[in-house]
Amino acid sequence: MSKLSLINVNSFKFVVIIPAAGSSERMRSSSFSLSSSSLSNQNGPLNKNPVFRRQQVLPKQYQIACSKPLIYHTVSSFLRLKWIDYIIVLASPELLKKMDELLSSLAKQQQKRFECIAGGTTRHRTIKIGLEHIEQKKLQPDYIIVHDGARPLIDERNLQELLTECYQHGAAGFCCDLTSTIISVHKDTSTLNEVLDRSKYLASETPQAFRSNLILDAYRKCTDDDLDYNTECLDLVKRYTKFDAKLLPVDPNLYFKVTYRKDLFAADNILKEHRNILLHCDFDCDKPFINYKFIKQLKDDLVANFADVKYFSDSVKIKNLVQHSPGTVHVLLHYCEHWNIVLEQNLAAYEHLVYIVVNSDKDNVELTNGASSSLLKWSKSVISKEIKNFYLIFTHAKNLDQESLRIRNIVVYLSKELPVEVSGQTFFI
Amino acid sequence: MSKLSLINVNSFKFVVIIPAAGSSERMRSSSFSLSSSSLSNQNGPLNKNPVFRRQQVLPKQYQIACSKPLIYHTVSSFLRLKWIDYIIVLASPELLKKMDELLSSLAKQQQKRFECIAGGTTRHRTIKIGLEHIEQKKLQPDYIIVHDGARPLIDERNLQELLTECYQHGAAGFCCDLTSTIISVHKDTSTLNEVLDRSKYLASETPQAFRSNLILDAYRKCTDDDLDYNTECLDLVKRYTKFDAKLLPVDPNLYFKVTYRKDLFAADNILKEHRNILLHCDFDCDKPFINYKFIKQLKDDLVANFADVKYFSDSVKIKNLVQHSPGTVHVLLHYCEHWNIVLEQNLAAYEHLVYIVVNSDKDNVELTNGASSSLLKWSKSVISKEIKNFYLIFTHAKNLDQESLRIRNIVVYLSKELPVEVSGQTFFI
Repeated sequence: MSKLSLINVNSFKFVVIIPAAGSSERMRSSSFSLSSSSLSNQNGPLNKNPVFRRQQVLPKQYQIACSKPLIYHTVSSFLRLKWIDYIIVLASPELLKKMDELLSSLAKQQQKRFECIAGGTTRHRTIKIGLEHIEQKKLQPDYIIVHDGARPLIDERNLQELLTECYQHGAAGFCCDLTSTIISVHKDTSTLNEVLDRSKYLASETPQAFRSNLILDAYRKCTDDDLDYNTECLDLVKRYTKFDAKLLPVDPNLYFKVTYRKDLFAADNILKEHRNILLHCDFDCDKPFINYKFIKQLKDDLVANFADVKYFSDSVKIKNLVQHSPGTVHVLLHYCEHWNIVLEQNLAAYEHLVYIVVNSDKDNVELTNGASSSLLKWSKSVISKEIKNFYLIFTHAKNLDQESLRIRNIVVYLSKELPVEVSGQTFFI
Repeated sequence: MSKLSLINVNSFKFVVIIPAAGSSERMRSSSFSLSSSSLSNQNGPLNKNPVFRRQQVLPKQYQIACSKPLIYHTVSSFLRLKWIDYIIVLASPELLKKMDELLSSLAKQQQKRFECIAGGTTRHRTIKIGLEHIEQKKLQPDYIIVHDGARPLIDERNLQELLTECYQHGAAGFCCDLTSTIISVHKDTSTLNEVLDRSKYLASETPQAFRSNLILDAYRKCTDDDLDYNTECLDLVKRYTKFDAKLLPVDPNLYFKVTYRKDLFAADNILKEHRNILLHCDFDCDKPFINYKFIKQLKDDLVANFADVKYFSDSVKIKNLVQHSPGTVHVLLHYCEHWNIVLEQNLAAYEHLVYIVVNSDKDNVELTNGASSSLLKWSKSVISKEIKNFYLIFTHAKNLDQESLRIRNIVVYLSKELPVEVSGQTFFI
């Protein structure tokens, strides 16, 4: 694939259809029953974290992973791609208002690029409504991309490869190897009937891409039976337009569908690895005190654990980035010659901040009782409307070699998990 | 299923075969490449937590989830069932020594009940070696259970239902609905060939159970081609003994197979929900100070978030339990009339402890600088060989109503995650 010369996405018009009108019976029927106490608490802060089992009431596309509903991640993944012209999200009629609310913060900046409308009773009926909407609005895209709401990540390079194959073949989709053996059972006895040869079959995933006229044609021609019972767009296009989609293998960690509670845990972690991390250093001390080995190791650890890490030692640049990257986790390493310089910091511009203070005070290696008490109070007071998550890690330059691994582990841990539960806490190392 | 009268498992002899000799190419080929720094650190404490991406070197059954290798969880799940007579773990020859080491702590107590031996080049060849071993050792079980090493949980009731069906049908297995559409492609062009009707097929999972003579017979009769390319024990038994296995639907969150990195995240979280939690209260104060509403809410929250929660207010009982349940997380709620009583606590018997101190000192609602500093130092000093994870949450009785939710969230969070990174820290609420 790497040798493939990609189409120029700026030469074409792309519309994305995201069917998200399902009721997710399979997730709701998960075996772990909710106690009454957990139901009554469903709006509490625990909902921020899928570690807690309190959010199994809404369909899966509304479930929280990495601090936001899955559908929010899905839509913003597409909005990040400037060459995507329009996105249509289809919600169930009774949850349309909720969907609008969830996506409202995206809508403020991007309202000309996406829209939520009511979907249908099955996946194919929902997609058909999306296609009809494209025609009514005279959007006239060259290509239509169909993607499930419960697959929250999109990789740009990968999507462009799909579109390049679609350009050549008329339709294209992603596939993965099967992990379980596929069987059929006798309906009456539930005993084994047939075992498929696993090596001959694949699992079909989304996104899928289509030349507009082909998918519009296929959905115009297909039957009510297709709309009610079929599950595969590529199949409708094959049967009604005679175009055989190209299938591309894809990393199963990228586009897997969230169906069960276990998948939500997986999505939560994979999304956390894709947080934007910005490492910034601030040196309020003389050069000889700075432990460059520690900085390099910290950077390496962040790079090993996150997909997108940027490093700055320039305070001006970071100010700009603070304003333009919502959701970014800032790791600020601050050398200072006296602990009380910390109390003067203005941190209002940050959203998520892991603040590592290295005290390089030669005369006072041990903090006084009053100092630790002041730092504890200060770090609690920092939590504000601006800063959603704040953690203070306080150490002395003399401890940095011995405690290097421990500090780096805490930084990676906090940056990934952003635990609201311990936000505002001070960690003395 | 709930009406089924189960067989008496004590009347039969059961041997479990766990094929764990695979190389997990699919997990190793995950797209996220490891940086050199992460490889060099692979034995560091980060390996304790799959949140960190540093453990993708060994096959999946050796990967860490919930603090232990998957295979450790799998084997101990079976060892917990006293009616299981013998367990045979099959490792790849080159990793047999490592497997022995990993399971050595289980072996100390349970060596008569399990054994690690070298497996074969394919799953079926490995199972065949296990079956031959059963015959050589003259174990003569009534039933043989086959279970994958990378499925770390076993539910007793569920397994007994499987064995009851096996008693009636000769063979039985678990199955789940398919979540993706199954397709086949033309080998030469990678274009869509066939789309299966998803509603007619199921995914086959393990554990599977067999009458001994049937599975022994099937593996004696099957061909080299079967041993090299087939993936389904139920299929061999069907073809060579004419017994059609009974298939039981099962919660997909219970027996899913860890194949990719995403699945490891899922397993990690599901296993954490199955930690044993023991809530214990200790009242060093007058009754009127005790906030029973808080205790009830804390208990409810733990029950809502963990599968196994026990509650004690009796200090004698807890001492016994400390000695007998390795891995248990103790949540100790301690009311005391002066903060320095905390420093006198002997906590050596605990392994994982979340220690909530409610200060009911009427005269000093605010801690002095010296007090908070002493508590910080003390909680760091508590970490010892005995206590692996220790967290101190310190609050005043007067804050308990207002901060109730925050404290409960921290307790649930720490009990579930047991983050080694912040072990020894004090959280002042």
